[in-house]
Amino acid sequence: MSSTAVRPSRPQSSSNKQQGKNGATPKRAQQVYDFADYQKALRTAGSADALRGLLGGKGANLAEMNSLGLPIPNGFVITTEACKAYLASKGKFPPGMWEEVTAALKKLEKATGKKLGDPKQPLLVSCRSGAKFSMPGMMDTVLNIGMTDEVAASLAEKTGDERFAFDSYRRLVQMYGRVVLGVPDEAFDVPLQKARAARRVDNDAELPAEDLRMLTAQFKDVVKQHTKKPFPSDPMEQLRLAIEAVFDSWNGKRAFDYRKAAGIPHDLGTAVNIVTMVFGNMGERSATGVATTRDVTTGAPEIEGDFLINAQGEDVVNGTRTPLRIAEMAIWAPKLWKEFQRYCVLLEKHYRDVQDVEFTVEDGKLWMLQTRNAKRTAQAAIRIAVDLARQKRITKEEAVLRVSPEHVDYFLHPQFDAAARAEAAKAGGALLAKGLNVSPGAAIGQVAFDADLAEEWAKKEGKQVILVRLETKPDDVHGMLAAQGVVTSRGGRTSHAALVARQFGKPAVVGALSLEVDVEARRMSGQGGVVVHEGEWVSIDGTTGEVFLGKLPTVVPDVADEHLLQLLSWADAARDLGVWANSDYGRDAERARRFGAEGIGLCRTEHMFFEADRLPIVQAMILAKDEDERAEHLQKLLPLQRSDFAELFRAMDGLPVTIRLIDPPLHEFLPDHDRLMRETTELLTRLELHAGDESAMTTSLREHQKMLAKVDDLREQNPMLGLRGVRLGIHMPDLVRMQVRAIFEAACDQAASGVVVHPKIMIPLTTTAEELNVERGILEKEAKAVMKEQGCKVKYQFGTMIEIPRAALVADRLAEHAEFFSFGTNDLTQTTFGISRDDAETGFLTEYLQKGILADNPFATIDQDGVGQLMRWAIEKARTTRADIDTGICGEHGGDPRTIAFCDRIGLDYVSCSPFRIPIARLAAAQAALLRKAKADKVVTPAKALPKKAAAKK
Amino acid sequence: MSSTAVRPSRPQSSSNKQQGKNGATPKRAQQVYDFADYQKALRTAGSADALRGLLGGKGANLAEMNSLGLPIPNGFVITTEACKAYLASKGKFPPGMWEEVTAALKKLEKATGKKLGDPKQPLLVSCRSGAKFSMPGMMDTVLNIGMTDEVAASLAEKTGDERFAFDSYRRLVQMYGRVVLGVPDEAFDVPLQKARAARRVDNDAELPAEDLRMLTAQFKDVVKQHTKKPFPSDPMEQLRLAIEAVFDSWNGKRAFDYRKAAGIPHDLGTAVNIVTMVFGNMGERSATGVATTRDVTTGAPEIEGDFLINAQGEDVVNGTRTPLRIAEMAIWAPKLWKEFQRYCVLLEKHYRDVQDVEFTVEDGKLWMLQTRNAKRTAQAAIRIAVDLARQKRITKEEAVLRVSPEHVDYFLHPQFDAAARAEAAKAGGALLAKGLNVSPGAAIGQVAFDADLAEEWAKKEGKQVILVRLETKPDDVHGMLAAQGVVTSRGGRTSHAALVARQFGKPAVVGALSLEVDVEARRMSGQGGVVVHEGEWVSIDGTTGEVFLGKLPTVVPDVADEHLLQLLSWADAARDLGVWANSDYGRDAERARRFGAEGIGLCRTEHMFFEADRLPIVQAMILAKDEDERAEHLQKLLPLQRSDFAELFRAMDGLPVTIRLIDPPLHEFLPDHDRLMRETTELLTRLELHAGDESAMTTSLREHQKMLAKVDDLREQNPMLGLRGVRLGIHMPDLVRMQVRAIFEAACDQAASGVVVHPKIMIPLTTTAEELNVERGILEKEAKAVMKEQGCKVKYQFGTMIEIPRAALVADRLAEHAEFFSFGTNDLTQTTFGISRDDAETGFLTEYLQKGILADNPFATIDQDGVGQLMRWAIEKARTTRADIDTGICGEHGGDPRTIAFCDRIGLDYVSCSPFRIPIARLAAAQAALLRKAKADKVVTPAKALPKKAAAKK
Repeated sequence: MSSTAVRPSRPQSSSNKQQGKNGATPKRAQQVYDFADYQKALRTAGSADALRGLLGGKGANLAEMNSLGLPIPNGFVITTEACKAYLASKGKFPPGMWEEVTAALKKLEKATGKKLGDPKQPLLVSCRSGAKFSMPGMMDTVLNIGMTDEVAASLAEKTGDERFAFDSYRRLVQMYGRVVLGVPDEAFDVPLQKARAARRVDNDAELPAEDLRMLTAQFKDVVKQHTKKPFPSDPMEQLRLAIEAVFDSWNGKRAFDYRKAAGIPHDLGTAVNIVTMVFGNMGERSATGVATTRDVTTGAPEIEGDFLINAQGEDVVNGTRTPLRIAEMAIWAPKLWKEFQRYCVLLEKHYRDVQDVEFTVEDGKLWMLQTRNAKRTAQAAIRIAVDLARQKRITKEEAVLRVSPEHVDYFLHPQFDAAARAEAAKAGGALLAKGLNVSPGAAIGQVAFDADLAEEWAKKEGKQVILVRLETKPDDVHGMLAAQGVVTSRGGRTSHAALVARQFGKPAVVGALSLEVDVEARRMSGQGGVVVHEGEWVSIDGTTGEVFLGKLPTVVPDVADEHLLQLLSWADAARDLGVWANSDYGRDAERARRFGAEGIGLCRTEHMFFEADRLPIVQAMILAKDEDERAEHLQKLLPLQRSDFAELFRAMDGLPVTIRLIDPPLHEFLPDHDRLMRETTELLTRLELHAGDESAMTTSLREHQKMLAKVDDLREQNPMLGLRGVRLGIHMPDLVRMQVRAIFEAACDQAASGVVVHPKIMIPLTTTAEELNVERGILEKEAKAVMKEQGCKVKYQFGTMIEIPRAALVADRLAEHAEFFSFGTNDLTQTTFGISRDDAETGFLTEYLQKGILADNPFATIDQDGVGQLMRWAIEKARTTRADIDTGICGEHGGDPRTIAFCDRIGLDYVSCSPFRIPIARLAAAQAALLRKAKADKVVTPAKALPKKAAAKK
Repeated sequence: MSSTAVRPSRPQSSSNKQQGKNGATPKRAQQVYDFADYQKALRTAGSADALRGLLGGKGANLAEMNSLGLPIPNGFVITTEACKAYLASKGKFPPGMWEEVTAALKKLEKATGKKLGDPKQPLLVSCRSGAKFSMPGMMDTVLNIGMTDEVAASLAEKTGDERFAFDSYRRLVQMYGRVVLGVPDEAFDVPLQKARAARRVDNDAELPAEDLRMLTAQFKDVVKQHTKKPFPSDPMEQLRLAIEAVFDSWNGKRAFDYRKAAGIPHDLGTAVNIVTMVFGNMGERSATGVATTRDVTTGAPEIEGDFLINAQGEDVVNGTRTPLRIAEMAIWAPKLWKEFQRYCVLLEKHYRDVQDVEFTVEDGKLWMLQTRNAKRTAQAAIRIAVDLARQKRITKEEAVLRVSPEHVDYFLHPQFDAAARAEAAKAGGALLAKGLNVSPGAAIGQVAFDADLAEEWAKKEGKQVILVRLETKPDDVHGMLAAQGVVTSRGGRTSHAALVARQFGKPAVVGALSLEVDVEARRMSGQGGVVVHEGEWVSIDGTTGEVFLGKLPTVVPDVADEHLLQLLSWADAARDLGVWANSDYGRDAERARRFGAEGIGLCRTEHMFFEADRLPIVQAMILAKDEDERAEHLQKLLPLQRSDFAELFRAMDGLPVTIRLIDPPLHEFLPDHDRLMRETTELLTRLELHAGDESAMTTSLREHQKMLAKVDDLREQNPMLGLRGVRLGIHMPDLVRMQVRAIFEAACDQAASGVVVHPKIMIPLTTTAEELNVERGILEKEAKAVMKEQGCKVKYQFGTMIEIPRAALVADRLAEHAEFFSFGTNDLTQTTFGISRDDAETGFLTEYLQKGILADNPFATIDQDGVGQLMRWAIEKARTTRADIDTGICGEHGGDPRTIAFCDRIGLDYVSCSPFRIPIARLAAAQAALLRKAKADKVVTPAKALPKKAAAKK
């Protein structure tokens, strides 16, 4: 019979669904989830992370809050899978999706008792994008869907706020027109501008209700003009088109570019959230506000925030009305306040961190709109982490991981009052220059253009001084120490000024190229030609590299902060790396020890040579005509060096002290070549012309020529690669012998008075095993001689710096003679890269960083592929010769968190850095160890509890 | 019965021996071998090498000659095993040894028909040490053993030469007294001096027979006085004690120290040779002589040498009588001459090399006393190797291995006549200084102290000139080219002077520190205060680093020498490495090609910038105030560079030409900073004092200040590590763009006229992959643009130098962008070692070499442990990215044989060196390949035939 003949099938959605439930056809994945379906969605997705992938961040967040029992506006979310299917089919909703949307909407209408497009109980919804990773402002949102002429009129009546109703309506038309229908923004600007002009106001918020009603009508005309179709008055059509627009916006140019820059994959798609609109401006029982679950400025455990009664969200932010403090909610609505407090605790416990929440009260009903981890100040970050751990909301290890090294740095230096700084930065006139932020902290003072004046003003007149120089040299150090801070117009991150400033915790800005410093004229000019004369006040921010005209107010954080100390003690328990200090003086070492240093990793003995009372002796020693004369001057240096070392040993009683023998080339101790040559030429010219006192000039000329000859003799084309370090020690053994004598005389003296000394003698710039062998022979002989003379026995170690590529390459051979290695990564970076840092940091290196040829400054963060590779190699090779060799790092990198993490990974024993970086290094070392072990345990989220005590790594 | 009771055994030597032969007791090893026992000894020892171990070098050699059928004096050798047993038992002959000696002596007496101590037929023997490795003069020898009063008298009568008889006798007493009995030398000197004084002669040879007879008696008294025993008149005792003395001398201090220094093991022991004395002074039928089997000066295949009739060996050497040419033997004794010629051929065939032989004719009987491989001149070495191979006595590969690179070098430069040089060196007065031998060859000329004068004299007046400077700079190059040779008092092996001189094959001596050059006064002083004025003649030897006063005669070898060409063609067949040249100019490249270069491995484009007609344009380009002005000057440079490259492409038609883009920092092209500063200061002072034409001075000052400001701006603390290479290319892309345009315009032009061009664009000083990526982007765009304009397509390669450690470390990443690598080992050594060669080679590096801290100058021979390690790493890593990457070396090391062997081992594709090193590199590369393959085949002696054609190594 014909009825049994095959005929074309027609859609039978109900039977299809039936099949899906019972039979062979695979069930179509659910494409729409109600916010209440959290558990189901989580099961489907498989994990919290996958859930964010499926529902997007916002959708997952709302569903999660809902599951916690928090009141969120009803709504549902269309999955990213639906979006992807839509995009793949070039703009068609995937089968069944729209049906799921309409079903969800029905449920929503039932739950709220409102209905889309119904003037009596109008339901308004928003249609918001929400991808897995936050892309703020990059995709589209349409608010107030469901608004029609009738609804607007009814709403005006119900709220008694006609302005609100029509402002909402005109916003829908405008937003919809732009986002969904592609009408250019400017098209809406014309009527708006006219309306403002007519009312003579600058701001849309000042337009009255009747203007907004009129504008709504005009906007609809604009839409019709541009699209040749009337603005859709069917709310369901509004909804459908809005969903399509949000889907499409995933592939919009803005979003695409953003993902490219942020490294977010392009194939994730966005979810779409359809959420009931709630209004805080529905009368005196309505309100809207923002709050953090703790004080994010101080970290105090009190809810902080603002709210406004009868207001919309944007009113809280735009400052047209003064909001109430959140605590005043207790007076306005005590029950709601209790409810809100309860939610805050709930959220903190769930998210295990301080939350930043948005809420609205609509007609006496509290709605939570959003929650996320709160941003916080350095001070708050530390207190919150410690408090959360003490409340057992997180582990101590998590607390350690919650704080960033910059947060710790904050406590170590005075800071400009944040508001004042922001203001100064905004008012461009006060900003003189921006240079390299080489030594953090704020300082104010009167400008002095030379070191002597700086010292005189500071010491004799008690002035606060900022020393400003083109660049600094060793003979500027007394002025730097006397000053509050230092500014140079030249130099890089490892210039003399930067190194010394960091060493002594002096705020400093170097390489401030836009400052034109005229030392002769005792003035400088900054951005915009502002001229500053000597004695005028400036403020410098070493944390940002800014130099301001005038005095900015400063605040001084407390390094003995109870929470900071607690956190660092937890960090100490978690870390594997030792944290040592680079210190040259006793007082410096004492401070380092207070900050937690467990040893001295680098004492630069030559820094002592630069002190004012010693430099003349050092120069005389260099100029000595024979060995006897040199010996005489060395004899004078001996007691001075001995007392330096004695101070260090006392300060570090019981801890190791690593002393590097003289490193720089000798010409660094002599006067500047160019100045000598200019003066000599002038003297010669004057003598030739008989202009002046010939006898005096002849005497002066002789002295100049003698000094110039010596300077010329010692001058090198590339001093960085010249006669220095161990080369100097081998060339002039009596000099290093004197140093070793001073070390062991001091050690014996101190040991006799009960101090426990652990000297480590360190040889710089080694490249061959034979150098080390020869030098060790010379020095150990002297050490033994001193100990015999003094009748004492001091345990010491002999080791070397690894700061030249070849040293790393032949580390197995060096380890035959060295009991410890210290990576001198400043020089190792210079030689591995073939870069002279002094020349490059204000030159091509900056250009490379700007052009992205280098991602990081290799003098700030270790270059893992190059320099780091040599370090790995060196450690591996050295251990084949001496399995228990001690290894550390003492370059500037030793205080850099990323470098510290690298050092932890390659198994160094310690990092050594300037005293002011010690607390940071303690934290960074702990974080590195915790993350390394978490990774080894295949735990990647720091939120999971971590093993409490780290297992030994070796 | 009692006779059966056990009783103490007594020695039964004969029955013991019997047991040894037939029974269970192991046979005692033979301790004395007759020279005739060669085959037996060889079987016992197991190999020729082991035989030398057992019989010592001399003993094995004599036995070997004997086995060839050559007449050697009868004798026998006591093994090194016996010596070791003697030393181990603290001075007792091992059991059986003396019995073997006496048996051997009996055999000897029988064979010679003479008898030790028999006045009628006296046998005299020598007792000589002979260890495995030659230790000339370090151990003892006693001659004329067997001499007694009676024998001496009989000998005097038989020879009719009383003087000879008693001279022999007194020598025995003296030698025996000193060596065997330990009588101090001085004890014999007293009577000798008396005798000389009495005869008023200076020389023992002038003493008459009666004096010698008297001295013999006096010497015996001396012995008796010192030893309290008479001189042994029993020849057997003489022999026994002499053997003991020779054994003991193995552990003498001299021998011990020598072995330590030469790395010879201390446990080898010495053999003792007992050899019949033969005398060439037994009348007119006796003679003695030395000869080489070919002419070791020219290599001609003719026996060369001298002999003296009726004379002792020492007479030939000491020159008291004029010897006869060996060929005259044909007249004196035609039969003997034929016999001798036959032996020479026999020896050459056997030893497969030219022999240096000693012989004696005693009463018409020819005795061969010694043979060894002959020393030879460079010229002879090459001719002999080629001739031997052509005669099939050795293989071609062996011929290649027989010649040293220095031998080849000889052909490339004029040389001082050897005799004249030796004389000049002896007469210290003529030697002005000894510096570094940086560019080989001899040159004579009149001293000029500046480049302009040198050029003027050479070009306009046709003078031969030696340019003498403190050091040279780029603006001296025209003078260097015009000069015969160059001397500088400063600078190292890779100083400007050294590099340029090597490049152009100009003999040069640099770093001649003892020369005090006073350019102002136009004179210099050398060793001993000798003053040389401008225009005086000097002779310089770039091969030895010596500078002489006056004109030394020179000889010019012929590089087109037929034998050299043959040898090099065999070398070419044997090598795996390509040999390319570092050449900057067409004429230079042509020469390189004549010398065998297979490509240009390095063209330093900046060298072209230094030429006199270009430097002003380059300076104007650097001083340009904006990009437009710079573009204008670059436009002027373009045609000049284009024609440079065109020349190169033409010269290397069909071969690759590697062009390195600009490398040095820009300040190298500007005037000297110090001079500018001095002149500026002088101008300022004069202006201040109103001394001179103020308007002219003001103009000059302005120019000076402008230039000084730019020089100061570009000046760097460590220019080696500064803004150069690819950094400069990225900083100033229009400059390298112009260079690439010039390359491709030239390539297209040449291709159009039928030249086959293979340009390789090389980027210097790369450290990161991104640098290469950026630079490649800029340059390939330009290359494509040019090719499109010209309507041509040139195949080219893009690559980089590896000259910074980081480049080697990240070679895998660099290989993503580079099709070839060229190791710039000059800079790679500087950065890997952290050594500035310019500063160090006249400074601490020399000190290190002197003190043995470094075994080799790492700028001459590659540092395999450090720099070499980076090279290995780079190649290995690069091949993971690009398996077929081309690799070469273009540093100075590329011409060093040991470095070439290293490059062969690590599998580079080619070495590139200066044109004058090309033939040397061809030979060295062949030797490296042959030895590597021989080692792979476990053949260690080059004497064995080697595989004819090398298998490809990749």
